[in-house]
Amino acid sequence: MALIDTTQFLADLHALRQIGAFRTGVHRPTFSPQDMESRHWLMDRMADIGLEPSIDGIGNVLGRHPGSGPKLLSGSHIESQNEAGWLDGALGVVAALALARAGLPVDVVACADEEGHFGGFIGSRSLTGLLEEAEIDRLRNRTTGQPLREALHAAGLAGKPRPPLEAGRYKGFFEMHIEQGTQLESTGRRSGVVTGIVAIWQYRITITGSQDHAGGTTMAERRDAGLAAVRLLTAIDAEFPRLCAERTTWTCGQIRFEPGAPSIIPGRAEILFQFRDIAPAVLQRLDVGLRRLVQDSNRRERCVAVLEPLSLSTPVACDDAMQDCLARAAEQHAPGLWLRMASGAGHDSQYIARLMPVAMLFTPSIGGVSHHWSEDTSEADLELGVRILGDAAAAFYSG
Amino acid sequence: MALIDTTQFLADLHALRQIGAFRTGVHRPTFSPQDMESRHWLMDRMADIGLEPSIDGIGNVLGRHPGSGPKLLSGSHIESQNEAGWLDGALGVVAALALARAGLPVDVVACADEEGHFGGFIGSRSLTGLLEEAEIDRLRNRTTGQPLREALHAAGLAGKPRPPLEAGRYKGFFEMHIEQGTQLESTGRRSGVVTGIVAIWQYRITITGSQDHAGGTTMAERRDAGLAAVRLLTAIDAEFPRLCAERTTWTCGQIRFEPGAPSIIPGRAEILFQFRDIAPAVLQRLDVGLRRLVQDSNRRERCVAVLEPLSLSTPVACDDAMQDCLARAAEQHAPGLWLRMASGAGHDSQYIARLMPVAMLFTPSIGGVSHHWSEDTSEADLELGVRILGDAAAAFYSG
Repeated sequence: MALIDTTQFLADLHALRQIGAFRTGVHRPTFSPQDMESRHWLMDRMADIGLEPSIDGIGNVLGRHPGSGPKLLSGSHIESQNEAGWLDGALGVVAALALARAGLPVDVVACADEEGHFGGFIGSRSLTGLLEEAEIDRLRNRTTGQPLREALHAAGLAGKPRPPLEAGRYKGFFEMHIEQGTQLESTGRRSGVVTGIVAIWQYRITITGSQDHAGGTTMAERRDAGLAAVRLLTAIDAEFPRLCAERTTWTCGQIRFEPGAPSIIPGRAEILFQFRDIAPAVLQRLDVGLRRLVQDSNRRERCVAVLEPLSLSTPVACDDAMQDCLARAAEQHAPGLWLRMASGAGHDSQYIARLMPVAMLFTPSIGGVSHHWSEDTSEADLELGVRILGDAAAAFYSG
Repeated sequence: MALIDTTQFLADLHALRQIGAFRTGVHRPTFSPQDMESRHWLMDRMADIGLEPSIDGIGNVLGRHPGSGPKLLSGSHIESQNEAGWLDGALGVVAALALARAGLPVDVVACADEEGHFGGFIGSRSLTGLLEEAEIDRLRNRTTGQPLREALHAAGLAGKPRPPLEAGRYKGFFEMHIEQGTQLESTGRRSGVVTGIVAIWQYRITITGSQDHAGGTTMAERRDAGLAAVRLLTAIDAEFPRLCAERTTWTCGQIRFEPGAPSIIPGRAEILFQFRDIAPAVLQRLDVGLRRLVQDSNRRERCVAVLEPLSLSTPVACDDAMQDCLARAAEQHAPGLWLRMASGAGHDSQYIARLMPVAMLFTPSIGGVSHHWSEDTSEADLELGVRILGDAAAAFYSG
């Protein structure tokens, strides 16, 4: 059993919340002055408790335990979405600090840009050797357009090495995170032991028609890319319930008509569409279904739809032994008030899983709110979470 | 019969095409330096042929015939859509110059901002007394956001008077314009006598749901404003064929999801939707149908859709006597190669019709292209058009 100083844990969380404070949340986009301030704050806290802090060439902060023998790795990310919540990412980093402070043999990590201001998981992908220099050359800030190289230079990180995590050093990675959904809250549970992380299959669908005047062109003559896009999305939403599994989700988060004027028939439409599931067979079935629906559209419409996969991630299973340690600790601290659940969102764990066993613990998101400054978890549930995490880490390490 | 100098007419068109040239078209947004250069070019041409040019406080250019007695008014607009065609608007202004040059008792007018860079028909509405100062205070450039007042100041127009057209001076208004559709081309005709201008009923539909994480929120819990918007548009397109008339058109030219990120369920969606017809009863029927479809959506969806009419214009009938003059001239110059047709697009004529009888003549749009730099009409059809317009104006004036 680990003796966690939950008072200091909450104090750290609230101190970090002051950096880039935005209403009750924070605004700490990756490599912004606020984000860099938070990384240096973290390095100071690591040093305070005897870890050896360093920051690498992509912004990852690692606090190494100075002792000998195998270690655990714990942490998450520290930057936020724009004008978003105070706990998303920060919780897992500060919880890892609390574990190290309690004397557990833990290295603490804050992976850079999990939130994807520049790319997808560039921090954890760098730590696992998956991030190429050529990708760093190419990436730009999705809000400001600033090249990643420029941002790294401005943050004082240009030229620093970015070594992968030390092979053989770690027994496993524990990440605590907010749920970002309502499964815990709606079932009255206080803690979630994550069974795995769903894969996200993200596509772009581009539909090309003919840009014409909305008054001069009869309905019969039109090749309306916007209308074809709308009909395709409606067809997808009608068909996917026949193909999905129990917890599958599918989302069109963005659609754009070009030129986008009230009196011009769209000549081009662009859709971003994704689905998520934990089972490879379900993902494959949905991919086949989506391709067929795009083909159907191309038979039916006078516009051409092209389906382009942007990223097809792999579902990640959490380690059984680590899950069991979390489950036992959860049952001890909150009997009957926890459950096992898949993570619908992506997390750094999914990349770190390439190097070691991983496990995740979720705290309830009040009202399910995420990626918004009003995101929150009760302090009692935060304390409960870090206690469960500490006990599970101690049990797994010595087990 | 009017003796039109078609060589000079084409030379004028090509000279005007040089101002703000963009590929084979022009880029002359309202009150841009290029637009103002074209207005001053026009005033010089008016002076050359003995008209008295003036520019008013909203940018309308009027060339008054110095002679006594009743006059005809002719013209169109001179600014262009962004990176658009060389003839849209310019054709009607240069044709009016050609009529005046041929000795017809014609005032030439170029109405400001028919293309709506700032508002809807602010030039012709000012000429007919419909434009309030308060609206000028409010309007901004739809591309740049520049306030109209600032643009007027920069163009040297601030503080100038903007009198309405002189009451009782005119027997009627002739406007020549490109068709902006394919009715003429697809039936092998070279000229179109316009019977009237359709009304445009333009709406905004705003749909409010709940912005949530695309991974953490189950399909059952979602209130996806984007999906509700897409389903509503599909339902409208399925229902409108049951309500429409032969030449009705309906268009969604713009849709926006907020926040518009791949992994966030849209909390808000905004649709711009319009329909056009020449018959008030059809317009009414479509309005009732649209309201019912929005109600259906609100019964079916977990999101709230609100329908807001932005502008409901009135269809305008062209003057029978003027149409007949155009028809006789068309039959004389191009026997069997013309037709009567409604205008699906809005034109300055629809506002000028509040003060006098109006008529319009269309030239074919090659491939139906409009609001794009590649818009074009053959020179033979341009010459034919101005000859028909000249003869019709002469006949109507003396008729």
